[in-house]
Amino acid sequence: MNNVLRGACIFGQSGGPTSVINASAYGVIRAALDAPEITKVYGAEHGIKGVLGDRLFVMDEEEERELALLTNTPSSELGSCRYKIADPEVDDTDYKRILEIFKKYDVRYFFYNGGNDSMDTCNKVSRYMESVGYDCRVMGVPKTIDNDLIGTDHCPGFASAAKYIATACMEIRKDTEVYDTGMITIVEVMGRHAGWLTAAASLATMAGAGPDLIYLPENDFDMEQFLLDVRNVYEETGNCMVAVSEGIHYADGSFVSEAETSATDGFGHAQLGGLAARLAEAVKGRMDVKVRGIELSLLQRAAAHQASATDINEAVMAGKTAVEKAVAGETGFMVGIKRTYEEDGDYVGEMVLVPLNDVANQEKKVPAEWITKNFVTKEFYDYALPLIQGEPEIAYVNSLPRYAKLKKVLAK
Amino acid sequence: MNNVLRGACIFGQSGGPTSVINASAYGVIRAALDAPEITKVYGAEHGIKGVLGDRLFVMDEEEERELALLTNTPSSELGSCRYKIADPEVDDTDYKRILEIFKKYDVRYFFYNGGNDSMDTCNKVSRYMESVGYDCRVMGVPKTIDNDLIGTDHCPGFASAAKYIATACMEIRKDTEVYDTGMITIVEVMGRHAGWLTAAASLATMAGAGPDLIYLPENDFDMEQFLLDVRNVYEETGNCMVAVSEGIHYADGSFVSEAETSATDGFGHAQLGGLAARLAEAVKGRMDVKVRGIELSLLQRAAAHQASATDINEAVMAGKTAVEKAVAGETGFMVGIKRTYEEDGDYVGEMVLVPLNDVANQEKKVPAEWITKNFVTKEFYDYALPLIQGEPEIAYVNSLPRYAKLKKVLAK
Repeated sequence: MNNVLRGACIFGQSGGPTSVINASAYGVIRAALDAPEITKVYGAEHGIKGVLGDRLFVMDEEEERELALLTNTPSSELGSCRYKIADPEVDDTDYKRILEIFKKYDVRYFFYNGGNDSMDTCNKVSRYMESVGYDCRVMGVPKTIDNDLIGTDHCPGFASAAKYIATACMEIRKDTEVYDTGMITIVEVMGRHAGWLTAAASLATMAGAGPDLIYLPENDFDMEQFLLDVRNVYEETGNCMVAVSEGIHYADGSFVSEAETSATDGFGHAQLGGLAARLAEAVKGRMDVKVRGIELSLLQRAAAHQASATDINEAVMAGKTAVEKAVAGETGFMVGIKRTYEEDGDYVGEMVLVPLNDVANQEKKVPAEWITKNFVTKEFYDYALPLIQGEPEIAYVNSLPRYAKLKKVLAK
Repeated sequence: MNNVLRGACIFGQSGGPTSVINASAYGVIRAALDAPEITKVYGAEHGIKGVLGDRLFVMDEEEERELALLTNTPSSELGSCRYKIADPEVDDTDYKRILEIFKKYDVRYFFYNGGNDSMDTCNKVSRYMESVGYDCRVMGVPKTIDNDLIGTDHCPGFASAAKYIATACMEIRKDTEVYDTGMITIVEVMGRHAGWLTAAASLATMAGAGPDLIYLPENDFDMEQFLLDVRNVYEETGNCMVAVSEGIHYADGSFVSEAETSATDGFGHAQLGGLAARLAEAVKGRMDVKVRGIELSLLQRAAAHQASATDINEAVMAGKTAVEKAVAGETGFMVGIKRTYEEDGDYVGEMVLVPLNDVANQEKKVPAEWITKNFVTKEFYDYALPLIQGEPEIAYVNSLPRYAKLKKVLAK
């Protein structure tokens, strides 16, 4: 069997943006431009929607300098989507269209960068192309700040968000300790179903200034116990800082952020503001103390200026590896990161291949044994700390970030 | 007249913390430790409250390495207060106590670091000591992210907050452009009476990714006009980002953040969440678009990791200058910063002295001619840009900030 497959490639970005998804884009694009087998490199506008809509940018037209700046440009530079593709057995309309586009541009390589849903898309495209006998190699590149993809030790995007969260929590903690009157601060962190990001707030505590209490969505949330925990810490120390996942839920599965009424705070109307504001109200209902809710919001997934260099490097490597392995003949895999340690104890992330079939539509949660009643254990710290290491080299103009500016020339 | 005055000094921090108030602390403490005339250097715990309560830390006991780390430690390391001191003519209880403490420790120098109220405190202490014939030199060191002190081109603390706000707005803007479905984003920035910080969001726009609309508290806010502005931008571009000051108010002076009811959004119950959430609701009431409110909250005044090196340097210099001028015989002044430009056009902040009498209890607002209907002019940009220049050298341990750890030995 001759492994050489010549043709164009399409790269797409999908799902929520991160600080480093564009670093993976750079990894894919650079490696694809360098691969003699790949005749043309297309970037799909808004992920699979750009393929369906025949909106493909010619990456060969971009300047290397601007492409390199992708490694410090947050958000998804080609545009993203949350388009859920149908099962080909149920409705193959989209797949027929994708095949049409692939044929039109002689696409033989498809690289898709995203989370659970995107790996599902990737897998379905891969299986469809195989089923119709169209020779095409499909590879997934992992991305999600939520860190909930299985088959990989961690996901590009997680560590930079974790580092931002830890740093922000340190700064917030310092700020809340400034007056001799006490204060209760509740910081809301992203992560609907998995608590990896919220757990990262513990890195601030280990560094000397962080939350006293941490609540993850892996456990049922008990409002009474939460209020008691807060009171205990406050009465003991005169201050209390809490990190909560946006996804915390009661034992019946209902999200605390969405519960219409609460037995503890007594308000029953539609709420503005998020979970942090809601929990702050609940505390205020019980304690006569200054309480502040802070939502880290988009900042945690977009703070490229505070990214982890380790994360950026791995994001680039994951993209490059996808291309190199595909060119070498592999298809139907997601690039995963395997945790290894050198003899001197230094962490090294090794790129491995994981069958897309094993990855799609599953969620990896924080192990139960790493979670205590209201914090996380040292195991989490040992897991996360190596991943946030290294400061990024950022291109500044006038001391503000200089992001990549792509020409985005549409293919005809 | 012999200018030499030997004795101890007290330094105190007051008002809301900033990213660089500890840099001024370093400037004062280092210069005071170095001055032969100053026999002992005390840091007051929680500002003037620490003087009144006889809670003074002996700075001579601290290690230079830790003191130097103050230049990258956010928040007020000695603790702050918002204690409003009485007029000595009305009630001199506090002043008698301050004099008692000054005599107890042979304090001949008093340095106070803060905003409007703190300069008022400083001024009152200065006048009282003069009135009772106690030889003591009193100097104010400016500090406020709000940038509203008069007698100085700008205040230490402002530029670092401005830089953070600009960078955060750039990252948020990138994030909001990722999907092909439009989005409206409202970012709430600190500044109750003056719009300097909110205006800083314009730096992001000038750098290529920032808000389309900016609303400052210097102008009356018109909800209908705001909703129209947002609609216009959104209909034209498919996206809209807004920066608003927390202090925007209607023509009758009532804060938009506190108005009990609103003609435009139709809800009349107590609101959770802040202004951003409230404006987001108002937009949602008119437009069927995804709307997100983001409050930068404490992060904007505590983000030392993203400080301006220019700001840090000026904060240190302001502290040093206060000590050096006091030792040289001056008293009753605040250190101000005068804007100068070198021949090559480079900005240089020159330290000058401003009578405390001229500064206390006044507010400097953004000039009316720098404000348009819903943005700011290039004059603001030219004013602010030089101030945010330079990246700080940050001490990291495990890629997280290493803040100063003071021993805080109490004087007996």
